[in-house]
Amino acid sequence: MASEFGSKLKVTVFGASHGIAVGAVADGFPAGEVIDTGQLALFMARRRPGKPLTTGRREADIPELVSGVIPGSREDQLITCASPLCAIIRNTDARPSDYNAFADTPRPGHADFTAHIKWGGNADMRGGGHFSGRLTAPICAVGGIALQILARRGIYVGAHLDSVGGVRDARFPIKPDKALFDEIAGKPLPVIDDAKGKEMQKAIAAAASELDSVGGVVECAVTGLPAGLGEPMFDGVENLFARALFGIPAVKGIEFGSGFAGSVLRGSQNNDPFTAVDGKIETETNNSGGILGGITTGMPVVFRVAFKPTPTIGLPQRTVSLSRGEPAILEARGRHDPCVALRAVPVVEAVTALVTLDLLMLCDVK
Amino acid sequence: MASEFGSKLKVTVFGASHGIAVGAVADGFPAGEVIDTGQLALFMARRRPGKPLTTGRREADIPELVSGVIPGSREDQLITCASPLCAIIRNTDARPSDYNAFADTPRPGHADFTAHIKWGGNADMRGGGHFSGRLTAPICAVGGIALQILARRGIYVGAHLDSVGGVRDARFPIKPDKALFDEIAGKPLPVIDDAKGKEMQKAIAAAASELDSVGGVVECAVTGLPAGLGEPMFDGVENLFARALFGIPAVKGIEFGSGFAGSVLRGSQNNDPFTAVDGKIETETNNSGGILGGITTGMPVVFRVAFKPTPTIGLPQRTVSLSRGEPAILEARGRHDPCVALRAVPVVEAVTALVTLDLLMLCDVK
Amino acid sequence: MASEFGSKLKVTVFGASHGIAVGAVADGFPAGEVIDTGQLALFMARRRPGKPLTTGRREADIPELVSGVIPGSREDQLITCASPLCAIIRNTDARPSDYNAFADTPRPGHADFTAHIKWGGNADMRGGGHFSGRLTAPICAVGGIALQILARRGIYVGAHLDSVGGVRDARFPIKPDKALFDEIAGKPLPVIDDAKGKEMQKAIAAAASELDSVGGVVECAVTGLPAGLGEPMFDGVENLFARALFGIPAVKGIEFGSGFAGSVLRGSQNNDPFTAVDGKIETETNNSGGILGGITTGMPVVFRVAFKPTPTIGLPQRTVSLSRGEPAILEARGRHDPCVALRAVPVVEAVTALVTLDLLMLCDVK
Amino acid sequence: MASEFGSKLKVTVFGASHGIAVGAVADGFPAGEVIDTGQLALFMARRRPGKPLTTGRREADIPELVSGVIPGSREDQLITCASPLCAIIRNTDARPSDYNAFADTPRPGHADFTAHIKWGGNADMRGGGHFSGRLTAPICAVGGIALQILARRGIYVGAHLDSVGGVRDARFPIKPDKALFDEIAGKPLPVIDDAKGKEMQKAIAAAASELDSVGGVVECAVTGLPAGLGEPMFDGVENLFARALFGIPAVKGIEFGSGFAGSVLRGSQNNDPFTAVDGKIETETNNSGGILGGITTGMPVVFRVAFKPTPTIGLPQRTVSLSRGEPAILEARGRHDPCVALRAVPVVEAVTALVTLDLLMLCDVK
Repeated sequence: MASEFGSKLKVTVFGASHGIAVGAVADGFPAGEVIDTGQLALFMARRRPGKPLTTGRREADIPELVSGVIPGSREDQLITCASPLCAIIRNTDARPSDYNAFADTPRPGHADFTAHIKWGGNADMRGGGHFSGRLTAPICAVGGIALQILARRGIYVGAHLDSVGGVRDARFPIKPDKALFDEIAGKPLPVIDDAKGKEMQKAIAAAASELDSVGGVVECAVTGLPAGLGEPMFDGVENLFARALFGIPAVKGIEFGSGFAGSVLRGSQNNDPFTAVDGKIETETNNSGGILGGITTGMPVVFRVAFKPTPTIGLPQRTVSLSRGEPAILEARGRHDPCVALRAVPVVEAVTALVTLDLLMLCDVK
Repeated sequence: MASEFGSKLKVTVFGASHGIAVGAVADGFPAGEVIDTGQLALFMARRRPGKPLTTGRREADIPELVSGVIPGSREDQLITCASPLCAIIRNTDARPSDYNAFADTPRPGHADFTAHIKWGGNADMRGGGHFSGRLTAPICAVGGIALQILARRGIYVGAHLDSVGGVRDARFPIKPDKALFDEIAGKPLPVIDDAKGKEMQKAIAAAASELDSVGGVVECAVTGLPAGLGEPMFDGVENLFARALFGIPAVKGIEFGSGFAGSVLRGSQNNDPFTAVDGKIETETNNSGGILGGITTGMPVVFRVAFKPTPTIGLPQRTVSLSRGEPAILEARGRHDPCVALRAVPVVEAVTALVTLDLLMLCDVK
Repeated sequence: MASEFGSKLKVTVFGASHGIAVGAVADGFPAGEVIDTGQLALFMARRRPGKPLTTGRREADIPELVSGVIPGSREDQLITCASPLCAIIRNTDARPSDYNAFADTPRPGHADFTAHIKWGGNADMRGGGHFSGRLTAPICAVGGIALQILARRGIYVGAHLDSVGGVRDARFPIKPDKALFDEIAGKPLPVIDDAKGKEMQKAIAAAASELDSVGGVVECAVTGLPAGLGEPMFDGVENLFARALFGIPAVKGIEFGSGFAGSVLRGSQNNDPFTAVDGKIETETNNSGGILGGITTGMPVVFRVAFKPTPTIGLPQRTVSLSRGEPAILEARGRHDPCVALRAVPVVEAVTALVTLDLLMLCDVK
Repeated sequence: MASEFGSKLKVTVFGASHGIAVGAVADGFPAGEVIDTGQLALFMARRRPGKPLTTGRREADIPELVSGVIPGSREDQLITCASPLCAIIRNTDARPSDYNAFADTPRPGHADFTAHIKWGGNADMRGGGHFSGRLTAPICAVGGIALQILARRGIYVGAHLDSVGGVRDARFPIKPDKALFDEIAGKPLPVIDDAKGKEMQKAIAAAASELDSVGGVVECAVTGLPAGLGEPMFDGVENLFARALFGIPAVKGIEFGSGFAGSVLRGSQNNDPFTAVDGKIETETNNSGGILGGITTGMPVVFRVAFKPTPTIGLPQRTVSLSRGEPAILEARGRHDPCVALRAVPVVEAVTALVTLDLLMLCDVK
């Protein structure tokens, strides 16, 4: 099993939805970095259940950092101390009885079935087990720390809901900045165009009221990166980002820059002409998403991640009883996210920050 | 630098467009597997330049297997012998003078610029250097061997041009089979719908005549896989496929199953209901692309890879002179692919076969 | 930083001597394995401080397994459940004041100096920080679980004090068995020859009374392994064992089979003749230590690990004041192990069990 | 299978004794480094068969660098160019008939048996196949390049025969320098004390005349390293060196600094007191072998590698016929090294240089 990624900064994730705790170990943060715990709590709150439009499950989601830090000079400060950092979050609001119906009748679109095939009855699949969205909480804990370390270096990561159902937000401008990222993060729905945000809320509410769910796409940008990060072929920026981002539950696609739309264009349309701005070489457009040959150009890295609609819905669905081998109808009770993409926006930022910091630390010797 | 991927089956790629040779080392093929060299040559011919609609460069592309094999019982047979297999292909048709214009004026959309940033003038960027599509030749050599090994186990990989420019082929049926894969591979253009294939040829020819290029999308399927392959979180099938496939030049996006389109759907539409067919559990649809929670379901694994239009075009483009820091106009001479996606179809199959075989070999102990 | 090892079974270690907790994540245990918590506690007690001849520091060292397990059918049973297992041990008996003298005057033979060079003042080096022997506690937690899993497969790991100071125990017989391992583990000093054990106790006590320390060698054997595990060249059994075992604090050497002594012999003396015993091929002697060409032969794997004498001693030592750049004399107060090798015996077994289980899980496809 | 090691500088080795070629791919050399091919040839000559006291097999062992380099300004110069470097050496002097006796009757002490167990009859074991000492030729090719790159940074690697049979050379002084390394390398036998060298020659010749073989120990030192390289726990200098060095055929032990001898000492004897010399902190002795807590101190890194006596000898040995399951007597014909350790001296330097350069390139961000 490999619930881990990274090279110089290695991240391991552990836990299950209904176990004692979930957590993550980040091995490789630079030493001496200040962690603002208040800022970290605010970041984690962006994914916390209990906000309107998400699952009814309430967890404090306050991480305890049990290693890798020493107290800072202020009460809300910790400092990284050159050893692996473990963030633990205890599960307090699990209601096992909600989730017992799926052991024999796997939910369509869910890992119930594949976990059964792989491990027989041995996997703890209550609440989705290790596949649960709950595992994104500790990812956000260590990712939030990475965001702070990057910000101190003038590198910022921001994301928004590019689309929900068929409702499309505006795209990031060619050079999004920290102010825009902060503005989006402060809204009830992380969007650029508030009117579109309202439409999205309606689409989500409509799906929820119909015992259904809806998918979405998250667009993410990284600004302030130097040019020259990444390697050709299999350790390029796209390779490393994709490998990590597909670890977020429900992700089914990723595209960089003009992505799939660019595949329809002519080269003359898709290429980004080079231009010099104040002695620095930039591109007039950014269809490359800030990456050429796997290596950063210095323009913002931009990509989009597709989230499927939450598999667990209340509507009746056709499935099979594993024990009897016969068809069965499933109606899932319980508390489920009608739109995973919404809560995933800070998770995408967190994963992106961790991979970005790792890339920075893999510096070249010339 | 990391021009390699894989766990039990590790693949390393070396070489540059205008160096002495390109090659690949595959460390981990099962021992005792027969390689049909005639079949391998046929597979590699599917990507070889010289066919209509591709670059005018002519290379034999016959790989020499210098290790990891012993002679078989027939003249066109080799047998893997439990040590790393190195396939080397000597470059014979390079015309350096075609490619000297880019050292100072980087091609928009190309790695000229990022290679300059990363390595100064030290990288060999003639013909694209290590970023060149030429590196896909040795990948096809070892990937072609993997395809034969998989086929012996009843596992088949096939791909087609899902779209070129705006022209869309039919999609794979829910259960494509070897016969369909072979049929597509035998056509001049690897498509399902021949009429669409003709339209694509026109689109490519039009772009070429206008000194331009056009992008495309390749759809690929893997049939015959057992359920239960892959791991949750960061070593799932999507993670491993994506990490390797982004190593193919010009790839800018990947989606599995319903992918980005699925993100627009309701859960009730996107979920694949389970059903029992002759005692085996299958799904009625396959929007999951054969993967749930990172683990195979037993349905075909299906995904799409987006290729940007070839960056190197004959039309004048705006760039910058690196030495003078001033704007410059670039008109690229030489022989260039008007549509990379076309030649990439066997390359996608090759990479997919290598990752699939690696996944198979990472068997679980229960 | 990389405080982790392993391929299919990945182990990450976190924590520091004076932090909140130490712990380990083991990602990849087979699912459905029973853990006898009573037996695990007994195993961990073999390293726990408070026993005579070791440090005066008292910690309960009871690990809390916060993920990767579900309750078993009996109260002292847990069952692995196919997700990463995290074992946490809270530090309860740290006395920071004991350890503040070394920040400016590094202890000879200790990582104080190198940690200062690498991280400035940013590393938490109280009590040795992440370099502390305390980190072997969580290693023993997850290693103890691996021992139980292996035993269920008829594979046993046992170790003893091969020598302490100049006092040498008997060597393992050519085929040690579980009974011998259990017998050794039950003694106050883990030795084969009790008379030698008494001499060792005297040597350790003498060193301690003189405010000094003494080193030792631990011999370890693994029985019941099938032949054919391991790979040639860089992933052989010796490579993987050595890479992990050097992670135990104070290890400065490792040898397999006849090791350094074998280098003095003739081939005719060192080679192990093959012989058939009840239809199974064995060797008459085992100078190869059960490994040929990096691959197991089926004979017990046998090796020896050298531990340097504990660096922290009470005797005055010459060092340098880092702040003033001048010579200084250091006299370390506090509670320190006079012989690290003694407590390391179960740690060697634990690490060996983890690497062995990983090797088993890396099964070949023929 | 994993015939590779390294992180930023990854080395993959391929080939077999009687295959078409042996070779290595080094992925990650810094770009723009000059390779003196004459100097490389001299280095490789130090291991080449044909010199007195080694095997009678004659191979030119001139590597062809087919990728990763461009021509330099002089004829005997190449320059690394930021892509993986592949060195190939064609086998020209194999006499298969010499080696056919072992397919059914495995040589004691040799991987014949374990290869048979692991791969049935599928491994190419002629001449030892992938286990052959021949694979050290390409390792020396890429290692020789690493030595040149390190030397340009003031880092030098040197080794000598610490002992052969029972004959012991002098040890390296506390600070060996380049001049001493060059002096040793230029001798017929790589030793410090010429008188001891002559005794060693007699011991080897005696063994050879008796159709036997003898083992040895190689001592190696690295000078000029900065302090602070390496990581705690499992990626320390000892871990990485050991993991790679055990990949050299016939290695059965490794010790750093005072190693096994240090385990017999008191802490007061084994610790290295710190002292300031011209404002730089050094140690008065170097029993730590230049490594504390897995991290370099700035003193020379010193270690010893134990080589078992060559398994293949002419004396009759007891073995088993695999086909008949009965005892058999083996008398090996052919050309075999009476002392592997002798030729291994430059191989130890080569592997050490590759790991050292990798460590250097894994620079930390503070």
